[in-house]
Amino acid sequence: MLDLKERIEEHIDQISEFTATPGKGTTRLTYSQEDLQTRNYIKSKMKENGLKVKEDGFGNIFGKLEGTLKDAPSVMIGSHFDSVPNGGSYDGPAGVVAALEVARLFVENKFTPKYPLEIIALVEEEGSRFGGGLMGSRGIVGLLSNDDFRNLKDKDGVSTEEAMAKIGLDPSLPRIRDPKTMKSFLELHIEQGPILEEKKIPVGVVEAIVGLTQLEVTIKGQAGHAGTTPMDRRADALVTAAQIIGQLPQFAVAEGEGTVITTGRLNVFPNGANVIPDQVVFSVDIRSGMEKNVLNVIEKTKELIDSFNKDGIETSVEQLLYIQPKELNAGIRSLLKEKSEGLNIPYCSINSGAGHDAMVFSDYTEVGMLFIPSKDGLSHCPEEWSDSEDIAKAVQIFYEAAKSLTEAE
Amino acid sequence: MLDLKERIEEHIDQISEFTATPGKGTTRLTYSQEDLQTRNYIKSKMKENGLKVKEDGFGNIFGKLEGTLKDAPSVMIGSHFDSVPNGGSYDGPAGVVAALEVARLFVENKFTPKYPLEIIALVEEEGSRFGGGLMGSRGIVGLLSNDDFRNLKDKDGVSTEEAMAKIGLDPSLPRIRDPKTMKSFLELHIEQGPILEEKKIPVGVVEAIVGLTQLEVTIKGQAGHAGTTPMDRRADALVTAAQIIGQLPQFAVAEGEGTVITTGRLNVFPNGANVIPDQVVFSVDIRSGMEKNVLNVIEKTKELIDSFNKDGIETSVEQLLYIQPKELNAGIRSLLKEKSEGLNIPYCSINSGAGHDAMVFSDYTEVGMLFIPSKDGLSHCPEEWSDSEDIAKAVQIFYEAAKSLTEAE
Repeated sequence: MLDLKERIEEHIDQISEFTATPGKGTTRLTYSQEDLQTRNYIKSKMKENGLKVKEDGFGNIFGKLEGTLKDAPSVMIGSHFDSVPNGGSYDGPAGVVAALEVARLFVENKFTPKYPLEIIALVEEEGSRFGGGLMGSRGIVGLLSNDDFRNLKDKDGVSTEEAMAKIGLDPSLPRIRDPKTMKSFLELHIEQGPILEEKKIPVGVVEAIVGLTQLEVTIKGQAGHAGTTPMDRRADALVTAAQIIGQLPQFAVAEGEGTVITTGRLNVFPNGANVIPDQVVFSVDIRSGMEKNVLNVIEKTKELIDSFNKDGIETSVEQLLYIQPKELNAGIRSLLKEKSEGLNIPYCSINSGAGHDAMVFSDYTEVGMLFIPSKDGLSHCPEEWSDSEDIAKAVQIFYEAAKSLTEAE
Repeated sequence: MLDLKERIEEHIDQISEFTATPGKGTTRLTYSQEDLQTRNYIKSKMKENGLKVKEDGFGNIFGKLEGTLKDAPSVMIGSHFDSVPNGGSYDGPAGVVAALEVARLFVENKFTPKYPLEIIALVEEEGSRFGGGLMGSRGIVGLLSNDDFRNLKDKDGVSTEEAMAKIGLDPSLPRIRDPKTMKSFLELHIEQGPILEEKKIPVGVVEAIVGLTQLEVTIKGQAGHAGTTPMDRRADALVTAAQIIGQLPQFAVAEGEGTVITTGRLNVFPNGANVIPDQVVFSVDIRSGMEKNVLNVIEKTKELIDSFNKDGIETSVEQLLYIQPKELNAGIRSLLKEKSEGLNIPYCSINSGAGHDAMVFSDYTEVGMLFIPSKDGLSHCPEEWSDSEDIAKAVQIFYEAAKSLTEAE
C-alpha cells in the first residue's frame, strides 16, 4: 500500500497532466477541458472514499461525509483547482489533494464524525479566465449575484454559463449556501514566498491575511526638449517620480513585521527619449498584517510625495483600494498549533501576503489556513514546487483538527 | 492667390491634422497611418510643383527639380515629418513646408537650375518609434546597415520592415546614397529654445550643433509577488532604476556650460501593480556643446549604473548614439547671412542644442541651417508654436541661397 506522501505525489502528478500547455507548466482555465478532466478525477477520488458528491451552479465540487448529527453544519476542507496560465502544479491542487487525503484517513480509520466533513474544490480562484478572482468562494457566500455571474465573459466573449454548458455543467443548480451550513473552513495553500523555506519549517499557521492598500500617484511637470531646456528651467516628472520611488522601500523596512511596499506599474508620458516627461503615473502597493504598519507607511508615502509639490511639479495621490488586515479565527489557529505540537511537527506563525478563498469565507465561518514552503519562493510559474512530505504533514494536522472540529469518534 | 505666409499656414494646418492624438498635440510615429497621410500630402504637393517624386528603402521622400547639368549633385532642402508623442505642429514639418515653398517659387518664377533642386522629407528623426533617432538621414549616408535597420523593433515588437509594408512602402528600394549626388543640404528648423524670441530676431543662422549621446539602460531584477516577497529578498528593477535616474541630473549640473541630461523614455516589465518589476529599460540623453562635458557625464553615468550591478540586479548600458559637437559649413553660413542682409531680414548667429538631420549630412556634404523663434521656447508639446511670418522669411532666404547654389537662371 502506498504511504501518505506517495499518494499525495500520485494525485499531484495525475492532476498536473491536465494542462493545456504540456511542458510549459499548468494552464487549467475554469470550465476548460482540463477543468473537466481534473473535476472528473477529483469526483472519482471523492467517490472512492465514499463521499456523497455534488456540484453547485458555479461548478464548485463538494464531497460530503455525513455526520451523525442531523442537519448539522459542515467542517469544510479544500482549496481551488484552477491555475494561472503557465502556472505550477501546487497553487490550488495541493489544498484539494490534502483535503481528499483527510477524508480518506477518516474513512480508512473508521472515524464517524458528528458534524459532516466536506471536501470542497473551488473554481476560478485565480480569475485567469473571467477576471476578478475568488469567484467560486465569493459565489458560495453570495458576494456574486446571478446577474453578475452570467455577465462575466472570457477574452473570447464566451460567457460563464456557455462555458459551463460546454463541459456538461448545470448552471441551474443552487448557488448560494446558507452560512448556517458551514461550521468551519480549513485551507492548505503553498506559501508563494520564501519565508518557510528560509526558516526550514515545514508548516506555517496563518495568523492573518495582510491588509492591502493601493495608491495611484500622478506627478505632473512640464514637457520640454531634452536638448534645449537648461537643467535649471526643468520640471521633470520622471526625475521627481524616481526620487520618490527610490525612497519608498525604506518606509516598509522601518516598519518591519513583514510590511512590504511595491511600485509595480509605472507609465511615463509622452515617453519619448528626447522629451522631458510631463507626467508619470505609478502604483504603490502597501501590505502588512498589522493595520498600524499600513497606516504609517501610507502617511509617510503621502508626506514624501507632497514634499515634491513645488517648482513646477504638481503631485496627487488617489487611494484605489484599502483592505484591512484580516485575522483568521483565533480558536482554529490555536487548534492547528496544538495539533502540530501533538504530532511533533515544527510550525511557525506566518501572514499571508496574498488573498485566498479562506479570506472570503472568514466573514461567514471560522477559518484556518496552513502554508507549506515554496521552493525558492516561486509561484505562478512552471518552476513552482513544494515537497509532498510537507503536504503530508499538513494533512496529518488537518486530520487531527478535523477530528476535533467534527467531534469524530 | 494666397501669399507665401498663408500658403505656409495652410500646409501646417493640414499636416497637423494627421495626428494619432487629436486635441492632444501631434503624434505622428514613423510608418503609422498618420505618416502615410502626411506622406501622401507631401508627395501630392511635390507633384503639383512638377517635381519628380521617389522614395527610398527607408521611406524617405525625395522631390526633384532636374537641372540642366547632366548627372550633377543636388542642392537638397528639407527636414523630417515624424513627431514625438503628443508633440507640436512645427518640429519637422516647418522645414518640409519651407522646402516645398522654395520649390514652388523656383517653378512659379520659372527659374531653371543647373544643379538639381531636391526637396527631401525624412523619417524617424525623433526616434519615437524605433529609438536612436536621425534614422532617415543616418540611413541615407550609410550609417545604418541593412541588418541594423531590419533588427529595429518598436515597443510592440513590430520590425521596421513589417511596419513599412503595413503602409505600402517598399523596403527593397535603394537605401544608401552616394555623397557625390549631394551638393549641399539646407534645413529650416524651429529653435526649440528661448533665445531668438528673447532677442526678438526672426532668423538664426546655426553655427554649430551640440554633441549628443543616447544610452539605453537595462536593469534586470527578479519578478515576485508584491505581497509575499519580503523587502530584504527583493531584486526590484524599478527601485534600482529610480535610484539611478534620481541622481542623473546632478552630473549635468556639475559640468555646467549648458550640459543637459534627460531620461525621457522608461518602460517597466511586466508593469502590473502587484508584481515586483523584473525589468526596466530607459533612455539617457546627454548633450553639450563641449565634447569633454559629454564624455565626463557618460563616464559618471556608467559608473553609477555599474555600482548597482549586485544583489540580484544586473545592469547593462548600450550606447545607441554618439555624435560629436559639429560646426556647420562656413561657406553656406556666409551665404545665408549675405542673403538675409540682401532681403533686409534681421538675423543672428546661434548654436543648436538639439541634434538635427543637418548634423548627420554635415560629414558628407555642405550643410546650412536656419532657426526661427519658438513661442515661450517650448517644443515637443502641443503648445509648440512658431510664426508663419518667420517661416516665410526663412523661405525667402533659402530661395535666394538655393538660386545661388543651383546656379539657377
